[in-house]
Amino acid sequence: MAFRSLVKVRFGDIDHAGIVYYPRFLHYFHVALEEFFDSELGVNYPTVVNHYRIGLPTVHLETDFSHPLRFGDEIEIEVRVVKFGRTSITFGYRVFKLGQEDPLIIGHNVTVCLDMDTFKKVAIPEWLLQRLKEAMGDAAV
Amino acid sequence: MAFRSLVKVRFGDIDHAGIVYYPRFLHYFHVALEEFFDSELGVNYPTVVNHYRIGLPTVHLETDFSHPLRFGDEIEIEVRVVKFGRTSITFGYRVFKLGQEDPLIIGHNVTVCLDMDTFKKVAIPEWLLQRLKEAMGDAAV
Amino acid sequence: MAFRSLVKVRFGDIDHAGIVYYPRFLHYFHVALEEFFDSELGVNYPTVVNHYRIGLPTVHLETDFSHPLRFGDEIEIEVRVVKFGRTSITFGYRVFKLGQEDPLIIGHNVTVCLDMDTFKKVAIPEWLLQRLKEAMGDAAV
Amino acid sequence: MAFRSLVKVRFGDIDHAGIVYYPRFLHYFHVALEEFFDSELGVNYPTVVNHYRIGLPTVHLETDFSHPLRFGDEIEIEVRVVKFGRTSITFGYRVFKLGQEDPLIIGHNVTVCLDMDTFKKVAIPEWLLQRLKEAMGDAAV
Repeated sequence: MAFRSLVKVRFGDIDHAGIVYYPRFLHYFHVALEEFFDSELGVNYPTVVNHYRIGLPTVHLETDFSHPLRFGDEIEIEVRVVKFGRTSITFGYRVFKLGQEDPLIIGHNVTVCLDMDTFKKVAIPEWLLQRLKEAMGDAAV
Repeated sequence: MAFRSLVKVRFGDIDHAGIVYYPRFLHYFHVALEEFFDSELGVNYPTVVNHYRIGLPTVHLETDFSHPLRFGDEIEIEVRVVKFGRTSITFGYRVFKLGQEDPLIIGHNVTVCLDMDTFKKVAIPEWLLQRLKEAMGDAAV
Repeated sequence: MAFRSLVKVRFGDIDHAGIVYYPRFLHYFHVALEEFFDSELGVNYPTVVNHYRIGLPTVHLETDFSHPLRFGDEIEIEVRVVKFGRTSITFGYRVFKLGQEDPLIIGHNVTVCLDMDTFKKVAIPEWLLQRLKEAMGDAAV
Repeated sequence: MAFRSLVKVRFGDIDHAGIVYYPRFLHYFHVALEEFFDSELGVNYPTVVNHYRIGLPTVHLETDFSHPLRFGDEIEIEVRVVKFGRTSITFGYRVFKLGQEDPLIIGHNVTVCLDMDTFKKVAIPEWLLQRLKEAMGDAAV
């Protein structure tokens, strides 16, 4: 089963319409991705950036929002590796209200592997490739 | 010519990779949209929500990022009405570094017109339709 | 012992100096306060605002920062009720790096009890007073 | 007269109570400080950090909030140099609603001068000292 990270909608996440400010969901996605690295890929994200000197900036983003969320909502953010190429990794996200079966938000982002010292595109390093494959296998079960 | 709003990348907009945290661009888009209502549609966004009781939550979002931005970059965010239906409006965004011709970021979001009291979808009110049409005409020139 | 809430410093919490953007700590304080209500006062904060129609805006804030924090740091935010008057409550905060004894950040904020419908100051309601007293007693042990 | 920076309260700056989320004011302070460096000290803040390798993290913060602010409010943030020592600079802030004489928010933060390469405290460099003195003189007029 795909990895899920629990997030609580906070007082300050709300906008003037009384619902979660939509850019905030992209922050939730990133927080869940950080947890995904730690929990599913077995390497924490600070280590990826600081030690391995790899960054994963987003080059494409697509998201569908079907229902607003409010202060106090508890949500689960599912993260999975959708696919990867030589230098890019696509992550998929689904947001569920706790206890519900249908996702309220679905999205994915395409990231590219950057050398943090040169800010140039590089091939996904072998140690990361291996973990991405394993994570895809696990999630498919 | 399409409307553009000037935004400065701020010290706190930066992430651990030293570039603008990508969810922050969606905030920039929203800020530029607020300016677009005021300047191009002739009604400020607080009035839309508070007086006309209309909200425009995002239901679909798509963005391409081709180049990172850094602290101190000055950018222009172009906003235009791409299309509208009975209850939905699609806004398009392009981000330019000051003085450059090629956009660094291109995106659009589909919003739906909500009655802020019932949170139900409603037809775009006539006063707004008229302004959207005029803004599309102006931008096309 | 005083209540503590675990917070992880996130990728997007960092500023251009490579450390946590200091306004972000006030967000951490608020998140910890939300957890404090739920865990120590026995009422979740959404209920305080939505059901009891009580708000607690900050009227005074004081904070000392002795050490920067970085991406990946795990911290505990201690929250306690410092004192209260007829209409005001002062909350105290201390931020600890996991496993360390000396706080890196110390702060407090004075909040006032507002009727959320009139936005006028009101006396702390009896149900909340009782819980504040109990929480102060528990933390003192 | 002291420097003032214009800020508009944005849709996403609002919290679940329908007013500006108070940590957001500290972000406004920082944005105004960035403008203050550019406009009053004659050096833009990215240059201070990137070229001169000087950082100014906040070590003490104090703020009084007397009135909530709402979406659409236009405010001016006054910034001035309150005092400085060998390694520290205290900046003062006052927030005014456009056209009003009494500040709604008053605050100050003490910052220390850091060498961005070593993250050690250093004496305020001569080029900055000179400008701080001039700015204090101008504001006093």
